[in-house]
Amino acid sequence: MWKANRITSRLSIQWPIIQAPMAGGATTPELVAAVSEAGGLGTLGAAYMSPRHIRDAIRAIRERTEKPFGVNLFIPEDFDEGQPIAANVTAALRAVRRELDIPEDPPITSFTENFAEQLAVVLEEAPAVFSFTFGMLDPRSLQALKQKGVTVIGTATTVREAVALEACGVDMIVAQGSEAGGHRGSFLPDAPSNLIGTMALVPQIVDRVSIPVIAAGGMMDGRGIAAAFALGAEAAQLGTAFLTCPESGAHPLHKQAIRETSDENIVLTRAFSGKWARGIQNDFIRKMTPLEHELPTYPVLNALTKDIRAASGKQQQSGYMSLWAGQAAPLGRELGAGELVMQLVEETKRVCGSLG
Amino acid sequence: MWKANRITSRLSIQWPIIQAPMAGGATTPELVAAVSEAGGLGTLGAAYMSPRHIRDAIRAIRERTEKPFGVNLFIPEDFDEGQPIAANVTAALRAVRRELDIPEDPPITSFTENFAEQLAVVLEEAPAVFSFTFGMLDPRSLQALKQKGVTVIGTATTVREAVALEACGVDMIVAQGSEAGGHRGSFLPDAPSNLIGTMALVPQIVDRVSIPVIAAGGMMDGRGIAAAFALGAEAAQLGTAFLTCPESGAHPLHKQAIRETSDENIVLTRAFSGKWARGIQNDFIRKMTPLEHELPTYPVLNALTKDIRAASGKQQQSGYMSLWAGQAAPLGRELGAGELVMQLVEETKRVCGSLG
Repeated sequence: MWKANRITSRLSIQWPIIQAPMAGGATTPELVAAVSEAGGLGTLGAAYMSPRHIRDAIRAIRERTEKPFGVNLFIPEDFDEGQPIAANVTAALRAVRRELDIPEDPPITSFTENFAEQLAVVLEEAPAVFSFTFGMLDPRSLQALKQKGVTVIGTATTVREAVALEACGVDMIVAQGSEAGGHRGSFLPDAPSNLIGTMALVPQIVDRVSIPVIAAGGMMDGRGIAAAFALGAEAAQLGTAFLTCPESGAHPLHKQAIRETSDENIVLTRAFSGKWARGIQNDFIRKMTPLEHELPTYPVLNALTKDIRAASGKQQQSGYMSLWAGQAAPLGRELGAGELVMQLVEETKRVCGSLG
Repeated sequence: MWKANRITSRLSIQWPIIQAPMAGGATTPELVAAVSEAGGLGTLGAAYMSPRHIRDAIRAIRERTEKPFGVNLFIPEDFDEGQPIAANVTAALRAVRRELDIPEDPPITSFTENFAEQLAVVLEEAPAVFSFTFGMLDPRSLQALKQKGVTVIGTATTVREAVALEACGVDMIVAQGSEAGGHRGSFLPDAPSNLIGTMALVPQIVDRVSIPVIAAGGMMDGRGIAAAFALGAEAAQLGTAFLTCPESGAHPLHKQAIRETSDENIVLTRAFSGKWARGIQNDFIRKMTPLEHELPTYPVLNALTKDIRAASGKQQQSGYMSLWAGQAAPLGRELGAGELVMQLVEETKRVCGSLG
């Protein structure tokens, strides 16, 4: 029975379907609450949000549902604020800014939000789930969350990362296959280049850890969810599928790009943030790809492209926006989030039943 | 019911499990026959075999089984025999040859076998299945095969390739996900770089063609096979899983490398043949990777490394062999091929049953 397992019972959710955290505005309180209210688990992608904004969003979710939901943050890492930016990269960014008619050399006010302050809000608000990406949570924070009754979920893209996460004490692991849209959660050296597909990754991780595994990457409908359970996952995490819901805060041009893309047009790029992420090919990726080896690292490049992404959104120019999407994006639909959850459940039931 | 579908009925096989063609000696008549005899479909990876060798192998299979089996060839493509070889590449190959104590500049006697003559043998012998990789079969050959009652199967790594193959008249399509070991079957421009995972590729192809789809890439046990059927495939094609069978002709060091590899150690490389293929990281790949942009194309590089691969095999040096493997290779077992088929069937039944 795929419907009742360690994840549904631990999280008190009806369906083992998780709406993936998507930092950058897509996971509005309306989206998160609608998914949870329908019996899945909504997740607030809070990595780029200020502590105050996170608190407001959590409260807005709670106004809409009493059901469990999650909050996701990025684990910070050391970086060189003053790293030299290659002249080619600066020139390319300036050219884009000229096209958008925004200042050529805007001051960078901050590189990231303050993680300790973000986490303090999560601890105070104590949502049912805290998930994190890009590393390992320090043991003290992990214990503090657990003492508040928060279930802690880490993200792995290789077996080695999954084993390290289990050892650090997380309750569950997201096994993120290479099909996944947005940022790859890789954090151990060399891992990002391996690009292990969901089909290969999930059963290998399931065999090597004893805690529950959540499959992510390439699932858009009941076929994908049923496949994830066949592989041994106890829940399926879908991002792109929820991006096109009316409750999603994704830019209308982002939603349109998902409607119109083909499988071949979804690429892996460091162009926007300095970290590898998957999205729909556009002018910005095309301009930056030749500079791949000169690009600054995260979060420096992320800070350098922030004004560009914001202005292109305002100006309705999808060419310079980050159009994150997974490799199965062409299977997308446009249903209300609650309706989508119910349809996913019905499809999964049907597929599972047809295999028996 | 995953067990009875258009593929099992068309091919008169008991189980929709196909042993993948693996050119280079792994698919001995013993392996192919054992898989078919157990109720799956064995496939002779005949691309590098001479016409006479193909005929002998087909007859050797028929001495061992009366059940259906397949033969696979590579579709030839135009190439420049006289393409200049970068000095760096020549120097690197010479250095490897010196280490192996073989002639530094061996004459290249041929680049590929003669496809027309290979296909003529297939037409005469008329196995139940002819599958092909790296392109489209010309309409005349396709019709000739069909008139002989041969089922024709093409290989796609993108939706566009699958649609093109259906239009050219094949009976079935292998949807080869990026997890797959050995050569990627990509043939349309730009496709190799997309690396679409099995989880995302299979349902997209299923939705866009009306002929049956065979999933390939990342499946090693009943979990993977059940997942493939959940995604809408009507058969699962496994290569790496059969490579470690005692009947497989893979080099003992290749089998050992599969036993010992981790998920992170399986990489995509053009180092051996000039075409992208997935295998276990070794010294040869490490030496050639920095020269990636200077490597000659297929089949020129394939011909240039032939002596190296042969000598390293003879000298028990796995560092210079092509150790093809899919991303789920660490899930490998060492069972007789017939026993493996039966175990895969039992596992698939169990997984499918557990989902109902």
